Amino acid sequence: VVSIAVDALGGDLAPRAVVDGAVQAARRLGLNILLVGPADQIGAELARHADAATLPITIIDAPDAITMGEAPLAALRRKPRASIKVAAELVASGRAAALVSAGHTGATLVAAHATFGVLPGVDRPALAVTVPTRTGAAILLDAGANVDCRPSHLVQFGVMGAAYATVAMGIEYPRVGLLSIGEEAGTGNDLTRDAHAGLSRATVNFIGNLEARDLFSGQADVVVCDGFTGNMALKVSEGLVGMIGQWLREDFGPQLGRVVPRATLRSFRRRMDYAEYGGAPLLGVGKLVLVGHGRSSAHAVRSAIAAAARLAEARVVERLAAALKP
Amino acid sequence: VVSIAVDALGGDLAPRAVVDGAVQAARRLGLNILLVGPADQIGAELARHADAATLPITIIDAPDAITMGEAPLAALRRKPRASIKVAAELVASGRAAALVSAGHTGATLVAAHATFGVLPGVDRPALAVTVPTRTGAAILLDAGANVDCRPSHLVQFGVMGAAYATVAMGIEYPRVGLLSIGEEAGTGNDLTRDAHAGLSRATVNFIGNLEARDLFSGQADVVVCDGFTGNMALKVSEGLVGMIGQWLREDFGPQLGRVVPRATLRSFRRRMDYAEYGGAPLLGVGKLVLVGHGRSSAHAVRSAIAAAARLAEARVVERLAAALKP
Repeated sequence: VVSIAVDALGGDLAPRAVVDGAVQAARRLGLNILLVGPADQIGAELARHADAATLPITIIDAPDAITMGEAPLAALRRKPRASIKVAAELVASGRAAALVSAGHTGATLVAAHATFGVLPGVDRPALAVTVPTRTGAAILLDAGANVDCRPSHLVQFGVMGAAYATVAMGIEYPRVGLLSIGEEAGTGNDLTRDAHAGLSRATVNFIGNLEARDLFSGQADVVVCDGFTGNMALKVSEGLVGMIGQWLREDFGPQLGRVVPRATLRSFRRRMDYAEYGGAPLLGVGKLVLVGHGRSSAHAVRSAIAAAARLAEARVVERLAAALKP
Repeated sequence: VVSIAVDALGGDLAPRAVVDGAVQAARRLGLNILLVGPADQIGAELARHADAATLPITIIDAPDAITMGEAPLAALRRKPRASIKVAAELVASGRAAALVSAGHTGATLVAAHATFGVLPGVDRPALAVTVPTRTGAAILLDAGANVDCRPSHLVQFGVMGAAYATVAMGIEYPRVGLLSIGEEAGTGNDLTRDAHAGLSRATVNFIGNLEARDLFSGQADVVVCDGFTGNMALKVSEGLVGMIGQWLREDFGPQLGRVVPRATLRSFRRRMDYAEYGGAPLLGVGKLVLVGHGRSSAHAVRSAIAAAARLAEARVVERLAAALKP
């Protein structure tokens, strides 16, 4: 049975949403959950569920939280018993097969990096988010782990993303596109122009620039960008879906306007929102780590735990390491 | 009567869409149009309109085009009689009050910069696009003129954007937001963090970071970003609207599915697409320049010409120059 370490203090709705999501997962998914955070708070939240004592959930006491405003490196140094750090250690020691957190992405990255390092050949781990496309789905990376990148980092993201698409999605020769603002190799900024040259020489199926307009087109299986750009593209899309929903309601009145957003837009939101969609793996670190959206609901936490179990059973990190070997 | 110089070779559908748009504008708007491009081609397109000879349209012969693949600086040096260059000279000499082009944005920028320079205190002109919001509209700049920016450029974009919002939209104290991936000052990348510090010291009503999710929220009147990020945000939005339209059609079948996108999404596209919306001014150059979307239709060209006439009559560049004075 797989054990998953869950940061109970991660996310805007923690610890309640995390504990509730863990309870849902523990009831249904046949796995062990290590809930990491202040034992008293977790205990109080668990007590709201009548069957809590019968579930395969273990509380691991870790009193400190890293808050959104803190600089991760300094905060983790100051707080060796922070929940994210203790959770990472459970994975490093082999007690858990994966780490799930909907908290501070930077803190998760730093804790993972410090605790179990990166895979050989990787300089910068990247957050890989699944985005819906006209024809199915694509992997976008980096979705926010590295806000300032060098061209060589983007080349690595392409290699890691392709390996992940093969391992996790079963695509034999994933098409790797570089997110930019024009199709031609010369368009984009200094970063994308140099990354284009690097990806052209890399051993991936590089299809060149992917116009931002075509992000959802299905032309690429793997979409490469720096973390600022990737996070920006995802958040702009989230905001736009919200606005279109409002307009549909205004244009069609409460009756139809309620139906249309409910059906299509909610389904889109579910596909779009990486928390709902099951958490985003942090590719390139030495162990399996999934990051949930900061606004993760209990359902989102449950989805992320399920995804972590699935990827752990598929031995994704081991296979990624093998694929990245020079 | 205002005269507008129109680059007849600008845009994917040129010269036909440009000539047709100019004809529409000349019929209705009470202005003179100088159509700049190969005289024979323009003449042939004009001949398709029975009333062409009676319209206030003058052909200015300029045989050469700058194509999308060319590096603007070198191309303009090689082709002194390129349509965009000749059109800019008509504005520099005072024969036209504004320049309109749906062609190569980089070439338009370089031609304008070389021909009539920038306003005092401006290092980098910026493309200012009007985006729809939940509550009305906002000015986003830079939308693609400067793909690599320094923090000081973003500060200038804030000052120019605020001045433009006052002059063109009548907003007394425009709220200026810095497009980023988090609300806190410390979030974002190196560029936005430094620009945040600079904007905090600038004499604008700076409201701090604007989360990418809130781009369409109406929280800011002016949205500041580098040209790569701005262009990316606009194009991702365009692509997403296209995909949602497809999904609505699939979910609701041809009947309802045709109605919903027709009403709401088409109206959104019209509001979103800066060509349809009337062309985007290139703020900070010494004369009035409007850039249309590369895919501009005749209607879009007509809208851009109308916007140019409106901004020329409002003496926007003169008032911008006054507002930018230290």
